[in-house]
Amino acid sequence: MAKPFRTSRIVEFSDTDMAGIMHFASFFRYMESAEHEMLREWGFSIFDEFDGQNISFPRVAVSCEYHSPARSEDVLDIEISVRTIGKKSITYGLHFSCDDREVATGEVTAVCCRIEYGKPLKSVEIPAPLVAHLQELLET
Amino acid sequence: MAKPFRTSRIVEFSDTDMAGIMHFASFFRYMESAEHEMLREWGFSIFDEFDGQNISFPRVAVSCEYHSPARSEDVLDIEISVRTIGKKSITYGLHFSCDDREVATGEVTAVCCRIEYGKPLKSVEIPAPLVAHLQELLET
Amino acid sequence: MAKPFRTSRIVEFSDTDMAGIMHFASFFRYMESAEHEMLREWGFSIFDEFDGQNISFPRVAVSCEYHSPARSEDVLDIEISVRTIGKKSITYGLHFSCDDREVATGEVTAVCCRIEYGKPLKSVEIPAPLVAHLQELLET
Amino acid sequence: MAKPFRTSRIVEFSDTDMAGIMHFASFFRYMESAEHEMLREWGFSIFDEFDGQNISFPRVAVSCEYHSPARSEDVLDIEISVRTIGKKSITYGLHFSCDDREVATGEVTAVCCRIEYGKPLKSVEIPAPLVAHLQELLET
Repeated sequence: MAKPFRTSRIVEFSDTDMAGIMHFASFFRYMESAEHEMLREWGFSIFDEFDGQNISFPRVAVSCEYHSPARSEDVLDIEISVRTIGKKSITYGLHFSCDDREVATGEVTAVCCRIEYGKPLKSVEIPAPLVAHLQELLET
Repeated sequence: MAKPFRTSRIVEFSDTDMAGIMHFASFFRYMESAEHEMLREWGFSIFDEFDGQNISFPRVAVSCEYHSPARSEDVLDIEISVRTIGKKSITYGLHFSCDDREVATGEVTAVCCRIEYGKPLKSVEIPAPLVAHLQELLET
Repeated sequence: MAKPFRTSRIVEFSDTDMAGIMHFASFFRYMESAEHEMLREWGFSIFDEFDGQNISFPRVAVSCEYHSPARSEDVLDIEISVRTIGKKSITYGLHFSCDDREVATGEVTAVCCRIEYGKPLKSVEIPAPLVAHLQELLET
Repeated sequence: MAKPFRTSRIVEFSDTDMAGIMHFASFFRYMESAEHEMLREWGFSIFDEFDGQNISFPRVAVSCEYHSPARSEDVLDIEISVRTIGKKSITYGLHFSCDDREVATGEVTAVCCRIEYGKPLKSVEIPAPLVAHLQELLET
């Protein structure tokens, strides 16, 4: 059975708001940084080059449900799994917890795009070496 | 038929990223600031006091779909409608466009909570004067 | 005597932190957005094109002193003056107040640079039409 | 001779802007998170309690000079030293580099304050156990 990618991150003071908890929008930045950490661990990078093309993954849809508040200096355990892989797009599931307390659940759909300066983004197929890694995270 | 609340906001340079477009997470801050502007226009405030209670609206679920990129200094037209009103919660629909180009569509579900310093959040009924305003935005 | 450029901005909830006040780093984003608003009012834009060159103003030094806290939904009055203009660089003075209460004082030094994709930034002379506007804000 | 506190942090994609580099205001959040990491390493916490009082360190003055751009996924080495310690205030010096390339130099002056909900901040003496640690970072 597939295992999710796991990392953790401490909630920063600057990501809290006057309600005393982590601001809801900050979770999306933490999702993205966890995803990038995963890519680096596999030897890839954002804005990576494949066959001479700059490739990146703009988001087309994201969502988050909040189960309990995260507070400054809470250590959030973050899990990333893969819900679906298409030829050009991928949907991740993300899970945030803190000492086994459920904090938030997110979903991110991103499209593999070729980035050329001054031109519109163009969707392209996800490079095969990356697909191989992603399939290992596929939820069953 | 109900009319949405309308406002607009220019995309700030600091909300763009190295892909040259507005970062996807920044849309959620723009959603929130539009909602707060709407509340102020009705004479309310975040962390408003009703009958001696501090009331606020933490988010329990949010989502956003991205249709086309927003760039620095684009003027985004933002519309807020109400999808559903419960006794203690509300779901907004949000729509971002730029010169009639579709940019993004969002949804935010928030729960009316009593805020007491050092105590957990407690959900309470949405105050009647606010419900009256919200119903005018209810999608039909 | 020179008059500063004046604008105002409401403090956003997402710019507060768990201490209940506007986070100190957010003032720099408000400085930048006020500066960009000033440039737009003069008919310029960030990443503007002069004589076929893309021109922008990366910061080389910034500072801020904080006199009193800004809170969510405070309306900040922001003034920009020009302290010095060099051939290629400019130093702004910024002042934040709220209902005549001193909030913060900032300084920003930026260098006029040519931006070419994939090349290092190159400092160039500030375009003459912009210098004319800037001189009107020069502190005496 | 005093040794600075050292940590490192990778530049996040969401902290870059459309100029392709880390946004100048983001450096201040990185300074703060490095400072908090240092406090945690010493066994302290932001909003720590000493003798039944909640203590925190609001900033009264900050500055940053930028020497070269930081880009997404650059690993920034961050050093914190102490420039001066007063009874109630402290001035840190911060240094950012990337593979021995100078990136930025910052300074932060913070005042030790008692935080009581609903009351104005009140400056108090820095607790002695913290002073002992800070003195070890004092520049000579």
